[in-house]
Amino acid sequence: MLNFELYTPTKIVFGKNTELQVGELIKDYNAKKVLVHYGGESAKRSGLLDKIYDSLAASQIEYVTLGGVVPNPRLSKVNEGLELCKQESVDFILAVGGGSVIDSAKSIGYGIACGGDVWDFYSRTREITGCLPIGCVLTIAAAGSEMSNSAVLTNEDGWLKRGALKSDFGRPRFAVLNPELTYSLPQYQTASGCVDILMHTMERYFNNSTMELTDHLSEALMRTVIMNSKILVNQPNNYRARAEIMWAGSLSHNGLLSCGTDGGDWASHQIEHELGGMFDVAHGAGLAAIWGSWARYVYKENIERFAQFAANVFDIPCGSNLEDAALAGIEAVEHFYRLIDMPTTLSELGVHPTDEQIDTLAFNCTFKNTRTVGIIKKLNSDDVANIYTMAK
Amino acid sequence: MLNFELYTPTKIVFGKNTELQVGELIKDYNAKKVLVHYGGESAKRSGLLDKIYDSLAASQIEYVTLGGVVPNPRLSKVNEGLELCKQESVDFILAVGGGSVIDSAKSIGYGIACGGDVWDFYSRTREITGCLPIGCVLTIAAAGSEMSNSAVLTNEDGWLKRGALKSDFGRPRFAVLNPELTYSLPQYQTASGCVDILMHTMERYFNNSTMELTDHLSEALMRTVIMNSKILVNQPNNYRARAEIMWAGSLSHNGLLSCGTDGGDWASHQIEHELGGMFDVAHGAGLAAIWGSWARYVYKENIERFAQFAANVFDIPCGSNLEDAALAGIEAVEHFYRLIDMPTTLSELGVHPTDEQIDTLAFNCTFKNTRTVGIIKKLNSDDVANIYTMAK
Repeated sequence: MLNFELYTPTKIVFGKNTELQVGELIKDYNAKKVLVHYGGESAKRSGLLDKIYDSLAASQIEYVTLGGVVPNPRLSKVNEGLELCKQESVDFILAVGGGSVIDSAKSIGYGIACGGDVWDFYSRTREITGCLPIGCVLTIAAAGSEMSNSAVLTNEDGWLKRGALKSDFGRPRFAVLNPELTYSLPQYQTASGCVDILMHTMERYFNNSTMELTDHLSEALMRTVIMNSKILVNQPNNYRARAEIMWAGSLSHNGLLSCGTDGGDWASHQIEHELGGMFDVAHGAGLAAIWGSWARYVYKENIERFAQFAANVFDIPCGSNLEDAALAGIEAVEHFYRLIDMPTTLSELGVHPTDEQIDTLAFNCTFKNTRTVGIIKKLNSDDVANIYTMAK
Repeated sequence: MLNFELYTPTKIVFGKNTELQVGELIKDYNAKKVLVHYGGESAKRSGLLDKIYDSLAASQIEYVTLGGVVPNPRLSKVNEGLELCKQESVDFILAVGGGSVIDSAKSIGYGIACGGDVWDFYSRTREITGCLPIGCVLTIAAAGSEMSNSAVLTNEDGWLKRGALKSDFGRPRFAVLNPELTYSLPQYQTASGCVDILMHTMERYFNNSTMELTDHLSEALMRTVIMNSKILVNQPNNYRARAEIMWAGSLSHNGLLSCGTDGGDWASHQIEHELGGMFDVAHGAGLAAIWGSWARYVYKENIERFAQFAANVFDIPCGSNLEDAALAGIEAVEHFYRLIDMPTTLSELGVHPTDEQIDTLAFNCTFKNTRTVGIIKKLNSDDVANIYTMAK
C-alpha cells in the first residue's frame, strides 16, 4: 500500500431537475459573466440550453455562449473561447455536455488564468498555475471529466492529440448530474460510455500495489456498472439504471479508486488512444475491442489479480486452478461486452489495420519505442503490435 | 433513489510521515498565524507536536497552542480558543487529535468567522455563515470528523451535549492521515473506533430508500472494516490494517455512503447518545452494546434489507427464508463485536441502569416524547425504553 493524496472538491448536485439550479450555484462564486460552452445542436434542441439561460437570468448573471465543441476537442475552439472570454471579461465557465466540452472548458480556464499559449501545457513546456472556475451540466455519462483533474486536447496543426493533462486547478467547482439528460443518447453511445466507465475502474484495478478497501470499492462499482449497463440495452429511459451509471462514471475517474495503489495499468487506454488517432472510433468501443487481447497477453504476470477480479466481480469460483479462473474472468468481460453490443475485436469495431499500420500504431504508442506502456506487464513496441494483431 | 448533494473538499494526504508536510500544506492558505489545537499529553509525549512545530517553523509560519480538549469537547475550551485566536489574530486552525479535537476546532472556527456566542449555532438560534480554515492531523480513527461537516459540543452550563451540528463551512481543508500515529492506542479504544466507523456506515445502510451503487460501496467498506478490525486485536502495529481502518473511517462519514438514500436510520446513535450523557462510556462501545437489541426490535419492518446485509457483508446465504438470514446477520455482527472484545449488552458495557433511569433515557432520547427516532421503525419513547431493557 502506497502513500496517496486525494482531492475531490467538486460539489455534486445529483438528480432530477438539478439543471435548474445552475444560476444559484454559480452565484456562490460571485461570477459576473459566464461562458456557456457546449457541443452540438442536441443541447439546444432538447431545450436544455434554454433552461440554463433562464436559470442564469433568474440569478441576474450575464452570459455569452460558445458551441461547436467536437469529440476530441480542438485547440482552435479553445483559442476561440479564449478570445471571447477576454473580450467579454468572462469570470466563470459553464460546460454543458460530456467529456469533450468539459475538457475544452478546462483548457480555456487554464489559458485565461495563466495567459500565453494553451498548447504549452499539453506539450509539457509550462506548468499550470491556475484555472478560471468551471462548473458543468453533464449530458453523457462516460469520461468522468466532471470530477477529474485531467483533460485532453487535439492540436489541428499536425493533429496531435495529447491525453490526460492533469492539474487539480482544473477540477470543476460543481457538477450537475441529472440522469434524465442522458435518456436521448443512442444505444451505441450509451454502451460505449458504460465501457469507458468500467475501464476507468479496471485500468486502476489491474495494478501491482493494492489496497483492500480500494479493491473492494472498485469491485462494488464494477458490479454495479455491469448490472445496469445490461438494463439500459432494453430500457434506455430507466431512471435508476441511468443514475447508477452516471454516478459510477464520476466516482470511476475522480481518484477515489486509485487510493493506496500504484495507479494501475492503463496500457489498454494507450493502445486504444493510437487507434482513435488513426481511425474514427468511439473511445469506449475501442477499449472494448482491445481489452480482451491485452488481458490474454498479460494475465500470466499477475494471475492472482485476474482470479480475484473473476471471483469478486463475476462470482467465478476461484479454487485451486487460478489460471482457469483468470481466463474465465476475461471471457466474462467479453461476454458482457457482447451483451451490450460492444465489439471484442477490431473487425467488430469496423477497423481493419494492415500489418504496416499496426507497426505504426505500436511505434507511436511507445513513443518510437522509447517507453513501455502498462504495469502488469511492461509492453514494448513489439508487445503492443502483438496485441493489435491478436485483437484483429 | 433520491436526489442528493455531495461536497467533500477535504484534501487527503495519507501515509507514512505525512505529518511532516503540515507546514507546506498550510502555506497554501496564506496563513500567517496558526492555532495548534490538541487534546491530552500523548501528542506531546510521542513527539508528534514537536514534529508539527518544526514543520510550521520550516515554512515560516507562526503559531500558538491550545491543548486540553477532552472527549465530548466543551464550550469553555472553545471560548478559551476564541479568546486566544482573537488576541493572536489566528487565521488557520490545525487540529491534532481525534474527533473531539477536530470538533472543538470547528466550533472555534465558526465563532471566529461568524462572531457572537458559539452556542447559538448548537441551540439552532443562528445560522453558520463561515468558518476559519481548518486542517487536521488525525491520531484516532473513529469519528470521521476529519472529512465530515458535523461537530458536537457540550455546554457545561446544564451539561447539554448537542450532536451533529452540520455545516459544509466546517469541512477541514486538509486531513493528514498517517496510520502509524494510531499504533499506540489501547486495544479498547482501537476496537471502539472500529465499531464507530462500522456503525457510521451501518446507520446509513439501514434505510428505506436505497441506491445500488451506494449499497455496494457500503458493503465493500463494512467487509473491509470487519476483516481489519479483527487483525488489529492481535497486531496493533500492522500498518496495512491500521491504514484500511483509518481510510474507511474517513469514507464512512464524509457523505459518500448516503448518496441517493434517505440518509439512514441513526436510531442506535440517538439511543447511545443518551447513554453517553448519563454514564461514562466510549461511544463505539456504547453503540456495540445497543445495536443488536435495536436490530432485533426493528428488523421485521424491513426484513429484505437485513437479509441483504447478511448476504453481502457476511456471506450468509439468503434463500427462501429471509427472516432466518436477517437474524443470522444480526448474530454475525454481535459475534464480530465479541471477537474484538466489544460489549453486546449494557451489563458487558459496565452499565446497569434502573428501570427509572431507562425511562429517563428514553424520555430524553425522544425529546420528552415529542419526536420519534429512526427510519426503519419510527421509535417512540416506549420503543426506546424497550430497546434499553432488551439490551440490559
